[in-house]
Amino acid sequence: MNIPQTSFPRVVIIGGGFAGLAAARGLEDKELQVVLLDKHNYHTFQPLLYQVATGGLEPDSIAFPLRKRFNDVENFYFRLAEVTDINAEEKQVSTSIGSLSYDYLVIATGSTTNFFGNTNIKRHTMEMKSIPQSLNIRSLILENFEEALLTSDLEERTKLMNFVIVGGGPTGVELAGALAEMKKEILPKDYPDLDIRLMKINLIQGADCLLKGMSKQASEKAEDFLIKLGVDVWKNLRVLNYDGDTITTNGEDHFKASTVIWAAGVKGASIDGLEAGCVVERAERYKVDEFNRVANHDTVFAIGDVACMNSEDYPYGHPMMAQPAIQQGKLLAKNILLHLKGKQMKPFVYNDKGSMATIGRNKAVVDLPKWKFQGVFAWFVWMIVHLFSLIGFRNKAVVFLNWMYNYIRFDRETRLIIRPYKHKNKYSFENDK
Amino acid sequence: MNIPQTSFPRVVIIGGGFAGLAAARGLEDKELQVVLLDKHNYHTFQPLLYQVATGGLEPDSIAFPLRKRFNDVENFYFRLAEVTDINAEEKQVSTSIGSLSYDYLVIATGSTTNFFGNTNIKRHTMEMKSIPQSLNIRSLILENFEEALLTSDLEERTKLMNFVIVGGGPTGVELAGALAEMKKEILPKDYPDLDIRLMKINLIQGADCLLKGMSKQASEKAEDFLIKLGVDVWKNLRVLNYDGDTITTNGEDHFKASTVIWAAGVKGASIDGLEAGCVVERAERYKVDEFNRVANHDTVFAIGDVACMNSEDYPYGHPMMAQPAIQQGKLLAKNILLHLKGKQMKPFVYNDKGSMATIGRNKAVVDLPKWKFQGVFAWFVWMIVHLFSLIGFRNKAVVFLNWMYNYIRFDRETRLIIRPYKHKNKYSFENDK
Repeated sequence: MNIPQTSFPRVVIIGGGFAGLAAARGLEDKELQVVLLDKHNYHTFQPLLYQVATGGLEPDSIAFPLRKRFNDVENFYFRLAEVTDINAEEKQVSTSIGSLSYDYLVIATGSTTNFFGNTNIKRHTMEMKSIPQSLNIRSLILENFEEALLTSDLEERTKLMNFVIVGGGPTGVELAGALAEMKKEILPKDYPDLDIRLMKINLIQGADCLLKGMSKQASEKAEDFLIKLGVDVWKNLRVLNYDGDTITTNGEDHFKASTVIWAAGVKGASIDGLEAGCVVERAERYKVDEFNRVANHDTVFAIGDVACMNSEDYPYGHPMMAQPAIQQGKLLAKNILLHLKGKQMKPFVYNDKGSMATIGRNKAVVDLPKWKFQGVFAWFVWMIVHLFSLIGFRNKAVVFLNWMYNYIRFDRETRLIIRPYKHKNKYSFENDK
Repeated sequence: MNIPQTSFPRVVIIGGGFAGLAAARGLEDKELQVVLLDKHNYHTFQPLLYQVATGGLEPDSIAFPLRKRFNDVENFYFRLAEVTDINAEEKQVSTSIGSLSYDYLVIATGSTTNFFGNTNIKRHTMEMKSIPQSLNIRSLILENFEEALLTSDLEERTKLMNFVIVGGGPTGVELAGALAEMKKEILPKDYPDLDIRLMKINLIQGADCLLKGMSKQASEKAEDFLIKLGVDVWKNLRVLNYDGDTITTNGEDHFKASTVIWAAGVKGASIDGLEAGCVVERAERYKVDEFNRVANHDTVFAIGDVACMNSEDYPYGHPMMAQPAIQQGKLLAKNILLHLKGKQMKPFVYNDKGSMATIGRNKAVVDLPKWKFQGVFAWFVWMIVHLFSLIGFRNKAVVFLNWMYNYIRFDRETRLIIRPYKHKNKYSFENDK
């Protein structure tokens, strides 16, 4: 990998998401060598992926080149690589570009879509965990509309215009809202020959309410907003299978749809190599102690989505969101420095700053620890928070500009099929990460 | 194709580039049915492709959704389709989504890269005629740098950092300049471990000067700018072959390079079906009369790059640029309306507004009919002209914002490998259009 062996201890961080980035930033310009590995050369601002998928933002404005983030940092190395295996005994990781030894290992690989072992669902539904995947969804929505124009078969057309989102968490809710706004403002103008009433947006949720982690108020208001926007919300309904054509559920309802987006579950993106006991079975997250140390490993840490730290308040680990990831990354950097000096590390305590979701224009729900509110002001707060969380001035400015434009003009101009998704024989994106 | 047959005559326009778009705009809301066909659902602003390829602009900001352009136009139909054949006898075109009859046919398919029959060069070099192709170049440049980091073999590394651009027209010159600026401002910061002096940018031109169509002044100054930026300019040198590794030329110079961009020639993107006599052999452009009528065909027209109209001033047809395309498209719309009324059509006279090319920050060359100038002011003029030529307010604003940011910060932030180009076994972009 051509990384020099120095007298400094080497910290290898796997993953440049919220957690990995926070850890790497905290270790800057210390007496350490930091190696950051990621399979992309950019950081992805995942909370806005749904806007890329629905033509509201260009992909480049929610990505930030990882190298640039560390341009002026000494003893820092980035490598574009995928880690395939961890050998904790020899303190070494194997990657797509060779192996690398470490003194401290930080696993910050985040999460991947959880299909719960259903290969049919995995094969036929769309995921939305990365920029390429969001672009695939964007292309597919538009390609289906183009195709719907061509058929005279009403059943076929209805299927092409039926969008099913499985999962009523923030991703599902935000995507359903954005699609509903496309249906309202954009698609009838772009496709005047199509009867827009044929377009359906179905949001299927297994639980008895949307946005399970949020307040009852937020959950009910979000559902209300969605229904007003024309989304069909199905609760207490579980998807059992999808063959690319028909969705079967545990209820009496079946759905014929060409586009199914699977937002019903995530799991930790754990890596091969550590003993089975290190990983929580169902969620594939690493069991960590209060210092984010992986069970039985002194110098292997896991942070963010891939870590499961059980505590009294969070018996199943912290929510898989940006905030715990950032806070764990920051603390871990400090703890590694303490550990190096032989001092006692500090335990992690999650500072819950609240959570929020946006459903559409002037429609959002916000749960702060002491205040819950919904509507226009919530939407405004959502925008400000997301704008300021984006990395880089250019990204902030471009996103702001797009939002202003979209708001004033009721438009989403990046509805471009730059990389077609269909015709998999020609373009194979099955391995998109 | 599901396009209704009405009592209005049907004009089928193939291609939504500068020419096709101008023609379609000119035929809006007339007693005509207009069908626009394009293989993309967006218009591409080709003059800025090189900035996408070098990380200065996001692809979405130089594309405009074609459907949006005609949102409020009556009797207008867009179809995402590739035309495979023209049957002039039956007045019908065959496409990827079925066949369609026409009363007037407008061929505005533009141009494609001309490899002059060399399949090796076609297989191994990069083209830059579309957004996907520009993104491929962006990915390849960055992937080669990532790979250069990994090798200890100096020869291999030198090859990975050697960029060869074949063709000294505007595309080659602008791309070479942009690459040189990346070498100066971006890449040394992103890759501090690499000796940036190993990076070479070679611009190979077959003729005895760059920017052949422009003034001697512009040509010399452009060369001067490039040399000052560190580009190696080779004139009177022809590339004979490239095997993916080594470029052989008609001179003594050979080049070992991993990235070769072929900007040495274009040809008309003619379509099968019309008699061979309609097409000019070498350039594959349609021979048209002064009304842009294809030889021997009363109701088949060709405009823009794919049309070759011989005149005293332009014995080999007009330059393959945006201006002639737009002017021909506009006039053709008027002529079709005149023809419908049984009136005499107007002959095309090209109004040469001048031409320009930018080499880098504060460095451009401008030839106006009565005034030729170079340097900072020329660069300013270049920016204004290109900004105002972009379609849509959002695109103008995003591009302007990026340019300001890049100018002030000496940066190009869209250096993202969103769709990797290498590993063709996994991602096959050979059919990118």
